[in-house]
Amino acid sequence: MSSSKKLDDLIAALQVMPGIGPVSATRIAYYLLDHRRADGLRLSSVLKDSLEAIALCPDCRNYSDGGAERCALCSDSHRRESGLLCVVESPMDVEAFEHAGSFSGTYFVLHGHLSPIDGIGPEELGLGVLKQRLESGTVSELILAVSQSVDGDATAEYLAAMARRQGVKVSRLATGVPIGGDIQSLDSGTLASSLQFRRQL
Amino acid sequence: MSSSKKLDDLIAALQVMPGIGPVSATRIAYYLLDHRRADGLRLSSVLKDSLEAIALCPDCRNYSDGGAERCALCSDSHRRESGLLCVVESPMDVEAFEHAGSFSGTYFVLHGHLSPIDGIGPEELGLGVLKQRLESGTVSELILAVSQSVDGDATAEYLAAMARRQGVKVSRLATGVPIGGDIQSLDSGTLASSLQFRRQL
Repeated sequence: MSSSKKLDDLIAALQVMPGIGPVSATRIAYYLLDHRRADGLRLSSVLKDSLEAIALCPDCRNYSDGGAERCALCSDSHRRESGLLCVVESPMDVEAFEHAGSFSGTYFVLHGHLSPIDGIGPEELGLGVLKQRLESGTVSELILAVSQSVDGDATAEYLAAMARRQGVKVSRLATGVPIGGDIQSLDSGTLASSLQFRRQL
Repeated sequence: MSSSKKLDDLIAALQVMPGIGPVSATRIAYYLLDHRRADGLRLSSVLKDSLEAIALCPDCRNYSDGGAERCALCSDSHRRESGLLCVVESPMDVEAFEHAGSFSGTYFVLHGHLSPIDGIGPEELGLGVLKQRLESGTVSELILAVSQSVDGDATAEYLAAMARRQGVKVSRLATGVPIGGDIQSLDSGTLASSLQFRRQL
């Protein structure tokens, strides 16, 4: 029992966040109470505002500020004109590409991969929206950045067939040795793949 | 740049919590958006409610549910009747005692220790309230559970003098070898203290 019921409630509520258990939640609650009440109240209002407003972009299904507006990335005309469309499984994959700064086209976010056993089919992944984009004639190449797994492979096959039906070029991210990685610590699947797709010098 | 300004705001606001940097904040934001919007909104309302309401208990200066009410621990008549009053530096110290379950008196929380160089004197620690409790004749023993440091020692001296002026018995937590601790990994200060205060068997 702590000295305050409201404090107990706060410590319990903080544990909704991943990686925050009772010890971290207690530390966070006391820290906010002791030193940062104003910032904590700001967090409360930002949390409410963003969780209520953030919706999916109608073009790419990534998170957007809500309403019928395109997200910031889809609104960028340079990106649209590139004709490159990169399909990823989650919004965090988009963050990773943007952080690396190596891609200047637009994205399409699946929010998962095909998994009939879990009831996740083309509709759940919003593939109707993707089909419209392929039909619109603005996409010159579809780049599949789905995970290298059995489910990811099945999803990639399905998407590749969709693209080919529309006569759109389709590619998938290269597999192989990570930059800075050493050979001896690689798993056998990656090593086999790096041999199979070796580059002529 | 992420796809949503509101998402960027949320990731920034989450970093007010100790131990949460940009990577954890991003993970938390996406997790709440992807899977737990309702729980996230609940966290927002509990955060607002608790940070606005939680105040200091007028008796012990620990956190209470607000208003002029005593906190849950001070309201317990068995605890009051014990006559034992334990002085700690922070509310988390109270949690530690309560978790151990080895103390059944009441507490007084200093929220720091005397530190004239930082402008923290008796007034900042609420020692006027403590003096009233000592004068009320309800305290039979004042137990000092302040930290074992130079500042803690100075604070303990000051509080001991206050208690003696009111004719109240005063004690300080024992120092020595922690239960389950091994001698070889102890610092020299603790080892010297455990020798000095050795127990006759």
